[in-house]
Amino acid sequence: MKLLILNGPNLNLLGVREPEVYGRQPFDKYLERLAETYPQIEFDYFQSNHEGALIDKIHEVGFSYQGIIFNAGAYTHTSIALHDAIKAVACPVIEVHISNVMSREPFRHHSCIAPACKGTIAGFGLDSYRLAVEALKAL
Amino acid sequence: MKLLILNGPNLNLLGVREPEVYGRQPFDKYLERLAETYPQIEFDYFQSNHEGALIDKIHEVGFSYQGIIFNAGAYTHTSIALHDAIKAVACPVIEVHISNVMSREPFRHHSCIAPACKGTIAGFGLDSYRLAVEALKAL
Amino acid sequence: MKLLILNGPNLNLLGVREPEVYGRQPFDKYLERLAETYPQIEFDYFQSNHEGALIDKIHEVGFSYQGIIFNAGAYTHTSIALHDAIKAVACPVIEVHISNVMSREPFRHHSCIAPACKGTIAGFGLDSYRLAVEALKAL
Amino acid sequence: MKLLILNGPNLNLLGVREPEVYGRQPFDKYLERLAETYPQIEFDYFQSNHEGALIDKIHEVGFSYQGIIFNAGAYTHTSIALHDAIKAVACPVIEVHISNVMSREPFRHHSCIAPACKGTIAGFGLDSYRLAVEALKAL
Amino acid sequence: MKLLILNGPNLNLLGVREPEVYGRQPFDKYLERLAETYPQIEFDYFQSNHEGALIDKIHEVGFSYQGIIFNAGAYTHTSIALHDAIKAVACPVIEVHISNVMSREPFRHHSCIAPACKGTIAGFGLDSYRLAVEALKAL
Amino acid sequence: MKLLILNGPNLNLLGVREPEVYGRQPFDKYLERLAETYPQIEFDYFQSNHEGALIDKIHEVGFSYQGIIFNAGAYTHTSIALHDAIKAVACPVIEVHISNVMSREPFRHHSCIAPACKGTIAGFGLDSYRLAVEALKAL
Amino acid sequence: MKLLILNGPNLNLLGVREPEVYGRQPFDKYLERLAETYPQIEFDYFQSNHEGALIDKIHEVGFSYQGIIFNAGAYTHTSIALHDAIKAVACPVIEVHISNVMSREPFRHHSCIAPACKGTIAGFGLDSYRLAVEALKAL
Amino acid sequence: MKLLILNGPNLNLLGVREPEVYGRQPFDKYLERLAETYPQIEFDYFQSNHEGALIDKIHEVGFSYQGIIFNAGAYTHTSIALHDAIKAVACPVIEVHISNVMSREPFRHHSCIAPACKGTIAGFGLDSYRLAVEALKAL
Amino acid sequence: MKLLILNGPNLNLLGVREPEVYGRQPFDKYLERLAETYPQIEFDYFQSNHEGALIDKIHEVGFSYQGIIFNAGAYTHTSIALHDAIKAVACPVIEVHISNVMSREPFRHHSCIAPACKGTIAGFGLDSYRLAVEALKAL
Amino acid sequence: MKLLILNGPNLNLLGVREPEVYGRQPFDKYLERLAETYPQIEFDYFQSNHEGALIDKIHEVGFSYQGIIFNAGAYTHTSIALHDAIKAVACPVIEVHISNVMSREPFRHHSCIAPACKGTIAGFGLDSYRLAVEALKAL
Amino acid sequence: MKLLILNGPNLNLLGVREPEVYGRQPFDKYLERLAETYPQIEFDYFQSNHEGALIDKIHEVGFSYQGIIFNAGAYTHTSIALHDAIKAVACPVIEVHISNVMSREPFRHHSCIAPACKGTIAGFGLDSYRLAVEALKAL
Amino acid sequence: MKLLILNGPNLNLLGVREPEVYGRQPFDKYLERLAETYPQIEFDYFQSNHEGALIDKIHEVGFSYQGIIFNAGAYTHTSIALHDAIKAVACPVIEVHISNVMSREPFRHHSCIAPACKGTIAGFGLDSYRLAVEALKAL
Repeated sequence: MKLLILNGPNLNLLGVREPEVYGRQPFDKYLERLAETYPQIEFDYFQSNHEGALIDKIHEVGFSYQGIIFNAGAYTHTSIALHDAIKAVACPVIEVHISNVMSREPFRHHSCIAPACKGTIAGFGLDSYRLAVEALKAL
Repeated sequence: MKLLILNGPNLNLLGVREPEVYGRQPFDKYLERLAETYPQIEFDYFQSNHEGALIDKIHEVGFSYQGIIFNAGAYTHTSIALHDAIKAVACPVIEVHISNVMSREPFRHHSCIAPACKGTIAGFGLDSYRLAVEALKAL
Repeated sequence: MKLLILNGPNLNLLGVREPEVYGRQPFDKYLERLAETYPQIEFDYFQSNHEGALIDKIHEVGFSYQGIIFNAGAYTHTSIALHDAIKAVACPVIEVHISNVMSREPFRHHSCIAPACKGTIAGFGLDSYRLAVEALKAL
Repeated sequence: MKLLILNGPNLNLLGVREPEVYGRQPFDKYLERLAETYPQIEFDYFQSNHEGALIDKIHEVGFSYQGIIFNAGAYTHTSIALHDAIKAVACPVIEVHISNVMSREPFRHHSCIAPACKGTIAGFGLDSYRLAVEALKAL
Repeated sequence: MKLLILNGPNLNLLGVREPEVYGRQPFDKYLERLAETYPQIEFDYFQSNHEGALIDKIHEVGFSYQGIIFNAGAYTHTSIALHDAIKAVACPVIEVHISNVMSREPFRHHSCIAPACKGTIAGFGLDSYRLAVEALKAL
Repeated sequence: MKLLILNGPNLNLLGVREPEVYGRQPFDKYLERLAETYPQIEFDYFQSNHEGALIDKIHEVGFSYQGIIFNAGAYTHTSIALHDAIKAVACPVIEVHISNVMSREPFRHHSCIAPACKGTIAGFGLDSYRLAVEALKAL
Repeated sequence: MKLLILNGPNLNLLGVREPEVYGRQPFDKYLERLAETYPQIEFDYFQSNHEGALIDKIHEVGFSYQGIIFNAGAYTHTSIALHDAIKAVACPVIEVHISNVMSREPFRHHSCIAPACKGTIAGFGLDSYRLAVEALKAL
Repeated sequence: MKLLILNGPNLNLLGVREPEVYGRQPFDKYLERLAETYPQIEFDYFQSNHEGALIDKIHEVGFSYQGIIFNAGAYTHTSIALHDAIKAVACPVIEVHISNVMSREPFRHHSCIAPACKGTIAGFGLDSYRLAVEALKAL
Repeated sequence: MKLLILNGPNLNLLGVREPEVYGRQPFDKYLERLAETYPQIEFDYFQSNHEGALIDKIHEVGFSYQGIIFNAGAYTHTSIALHDAIKAVACPVIEVHISNVMSREPFRHHSCIAPACKGTIAGFGLDSYRLAVEALKAL
Repeated sequence: MKLLILNGPNLNLLGVREPEVYGRQPFDKYLERLAETYPQIEFDYFQSNHEGALIDKIHEVGFSYQGIIFNAGAYTHTSIALHDAIKAVACPVIEVHISNVMSREPFRHHSCIAPACKGTIAGFGLDSYRLAVEALKAL
Repeated sequence: MKLLILNGPNLNLLGVREPEVYGRQPFDKYLERLAETYPQIEFDYFQSNHEGALIDKIHEVGFSYQGIIFNAGAYTHTSIALHDAIKAVACPVIEVHISNVMSREPFRHHSCIAPACKGTIAGFGLDSYRLAVEALKAL
Repeated sequence: MKLLILNGPNLNLLGVREPEVYGRQPFDKYLERLAETYPQIEFDYFQSNHEGALIDKIHEVGFSYQGIIFNAGAYTHTSIALHDAIKAVACPVIEVHISNVMSREPFRHHSCIAPACKGTIAGFGLDSYRLAVEALKAL
């Protein structure tokens, strides 16, 4: 089983940026532990601040991997192009968020990509990613 | 560890109502299997079509249990009173949905209760409940 | 043929409440005359001010009766849960209103339940109920 | 007793246009049967795709007939002029719709004419017209 | 000097329709008196309930008369086509209303034609027409 | 003089729930002191989390008591049914709030029940109830 | 007959400010000529940039004069207090505008004061004032 | 204890203006009686139709008095400057209204100043002022 | 191959009306040249300012012609009845506009008929009609 | 004559992605045939999922080519930056869409780029590109 | 070079009012230092809580000074009259704000006066005024 | 002191694109002169049409430079990702605009990035950049 963990804009700063919202743990440390927990799964990881690069990556893996775990960051709220990319590929995509976006600013309440995703997991800190792995395993 | 699984209006008809949206499995069967998967957790289950009864139940267990897994059904979109009930109690509440609500009618896109919950899990069929158990265990 | 006449909040006060809008006739008197007009139909009657009780009743009869005539009162404008209950059952539900709701306050112009009902009859005083019986007979 | 049945734009195509929404029965056949059912009522029938012609007709009969049964078609949603015409005449006007307009596109949810009508009957196929006759007889 | 007085839908019922709003005087009587007051002006009069007929008339006279006094009735609030017709012709058009439309229902507050007119006179009963004559004389 | 003090959803948790907003005093203690201050008034008290139960209670006392002091909690913002119940009864109803709702979340700014009430008192902590007693005494 | 001509903010700059919109004629010159045209009418004139001063003036003359011709300038679009002042006094108030406000910026399309006025005259340059005199004479 | 009673635009006409809404009693008579009821309180009174004068007064007394009872009239709905003035001073300000503003025109439903005030009392006629005195005494 | 070119309100004035927007060429001259370019196509032409006449024409030819090229003029933005007429007939309808409507006033940005048409061509002057012929030929 | 055909996000998947909406033909095959049809035109082709790359390309060719045929995909609905890029260059840009965007989801109804383009062609499948070539040839 | 520094409502309380937002420095101290920094510029200073007085002042100096630095306080968000006053005068007006208004309450995000000003400087504390002097010097 | 001047989409065309809005001066010439004016400051310059590249650059310098002067061009109005990038870094960011954006099209009135910036300077042509340097020096 091969999964892509895909992180959008500003998520390269995890552990640095607004730690009271996103926590103090760098993402690569978390990813290592996650991979250890699921040795039977091959994890691919990609982060970009470029909307186009995220689309490219979804196209690249979306017909051969078994799932994508996607934290689109701020593009969640503005990108119809990502919505279309998710809809265009064959594998299930799961929307994840570290924070509970619905309890933050109003401009973060709307998700452009949610209608194209299989499901949404939000608010559990980095554990949102593990729950998404669990969800994909069960599909 | 003691958890409440709380189901709102019309969820007593699971397996009967709109099976193409909600699936054909009755909830009690699912609950049995869930309990077997997590023998160390004591599950309490309550379903009601009455908004007031759901509030009463949240008050009753919200200071002694370790968590509530709450599928508020259609009250998700209209009940500020449930939002206040969740905010008033001490234990974490997780919002779950069987279907991907964001891909359905516009009046199902807004959640009154999300800002008061710890997090949201939506779109994974009945497996959304298991993922919520996983999330509560990790907290 | 078995029909439920289902009345929502404040309709227990018919004949007492705002008679210039709703008329001066108590509903039970009207119901007696209606039953006499249609002796071949078995009428069941239920009124509640509790949204949950209305949902319970719809579930109870919605798979065995031939139709429900439903005046949801003010819940017409706010209850997605009733919309879902109507959609979940097998028998046709007809929305009725005593007054012409579209000529009253703007917050009475929207109906949450109409899209789930077979049809709507509004503005004919208590005669709206008889017209709904006629409609169900013709189905 | 003299009644006008008034049909608005595109209703001349009944039986031809979108039969899955409006049915396959031509309106004149239906009208014949309706007239036979109510031999004591004199029916006048008029259809036009011209908003102005509908207004002219309402003016012409609105002070001498005992009622108008009006399916305004798409003008329902856009014509304040028809609203004013209905309000200007003396006889009661009943709004009818063949389909359940509230379960169709959002631009069909608002009725400009409803506040000026006596009442509304919608969703019962061609039977909506008969129910309107019943309603007018009872007034 | 040649002026057209142009009346839109339902204004043929002046003196009959809602007299508490529009007064009890038939328009032809008023027009006679108006013509006597301004013997030097040739008045043309046209009323129609047909939006298209009003457009036709504006085209017909709009390049040869010295002005049009236009009470568009309910088409005021819905007709962009009349807006375009007014803009297309050479002579000034003055929007008049008998009642003070801004103190009536909200759907009468917006005027589609006002931006294309020279000016607006509203609220003075039938005297609004005389004031418009005065305005055109001064131009 | 007989008054009902009616408390809506989550107000059973007063003194427990969000004390920085609602204070730390249990309501029954406050009620005792209030009764002592006004020995000539007979106080009836009812709290429920059920919208329907609040409507039932308003119907029960609304024709025989001299007034109702009503803190509808979150139902303030969503319940047209309570609006109708208040309008249906004979005695004056006063809307009270412990906190200044207008300085809280936007979804608490709108009151469905205010137009049906005699008046509103908000923002004075539990003292809002005493001021409502004063207001009713003066009516 | 005694009339007040009341000018609001920035109208002291007439002839100076944006002459392509408001013309090049100073208002006092115009007023002189207007007074000569109507020798039987006593004209009072007041201009202020202060909303409060305009209210004070309306109160001062509104119970003894026969009419007020009011160009409220930009306060037209924002002042509910002026609306209330007009409604509070006994004499008719006529809203005038030099330019056709409906063909200008959207924030000039709404009039707070129109519903409280007898009528509106807009778009005829300074001649709007004379037309208002004519209208008041006819009342 | 020193309190300011501050009245905004058009409230100088109390007893004259729209008596069916505001009552027939002049405010000074009411004020005399109020002062007699609370001999221990020193009342200062100020009314102005000028938004700026109301701000000046709030600044003048807001750091030395124990409270301000403020009926902002129509400025309630439009003045952010008054909101800021209230927030800038040290003493509590209570918003009062004679009528139940929520049952009047929609443009009176929003209060700019409420979020800056301690609380709101509306709908009790002139008695709203006395209730505000009671509220300030209890603070 | 038989095509209808259908022009809506005010398009009879082409070459006269607002030439800076619509050009100086009369439509009949253009039509002649178009017919010469496509000798194998039989062109029918109809223009009307009457919404009803446009609907009548669509019904008349919509089941026998191979296509309709429709410039609905201002009815584009307001007519649901035309939307329904287009949907009701069998042949493809192409929406054309001479000007680029999206760069003009906001009330021209919405098209009621677009969802019922095969496609849209806008902004190419009279050449939009030729492009529509090309499109129909290719279907 | 030199033209750029510019395709935006996800259009690299043409023939693969949602074939029921976009057809089954790969774009390069189509482009070959198009080039053969117009041997006198030099076609340049560029596709990117990167908004910035599309802007770069428009800048690069927009001062030397004779036209750009631009299918902006989902960026049509969100990108003001592309609007500005189109406005900044000298050559005409034509907006094309394969599907009839106005009959799809509401978030596809608004075009950010249309006001900056020469014209729009939508709904004709891949033939929309050929029609755009025709349009550019005629300019 | 002669400049007016013009401060609107509540800015007389600078150093006293909400110091965490506006700082603790009284404005006159700041003004002294500013004047010393720019000895070649003659500074005029005016503060008022009266919208009308601000308009009067703009008129008074707007044709003779070289610039106005205007902090309109809360009138920024509500005053079209100030917008018109700025537009009416000859000298450039610069909008300044001490705080970053866009990061505060939503009702502070809109500026009525910005479109009439030369430019805007916001968020730099009292230094915003000095930057405006720099900007005016460079014009 | 080290500052980044960061220019967003289409600003590479300065001096070429819409010179009546943006002026005719190429940006590099301006930058040279600016650097000469402030020899003590080290200027870094970066322009990109790629949203992602702008985010990357902000991350790269935002923890080591003393400030960023950011003209986000059209991304100002659409990019929440840039808002988040600005909020994530340590150094102050100042939003600048060459034109007065508030006097242009409505879609340019909202700034996504303003709430995350230290302050805003708009409308002074290229001098806006120098004023931002002045502001950063004073911080």
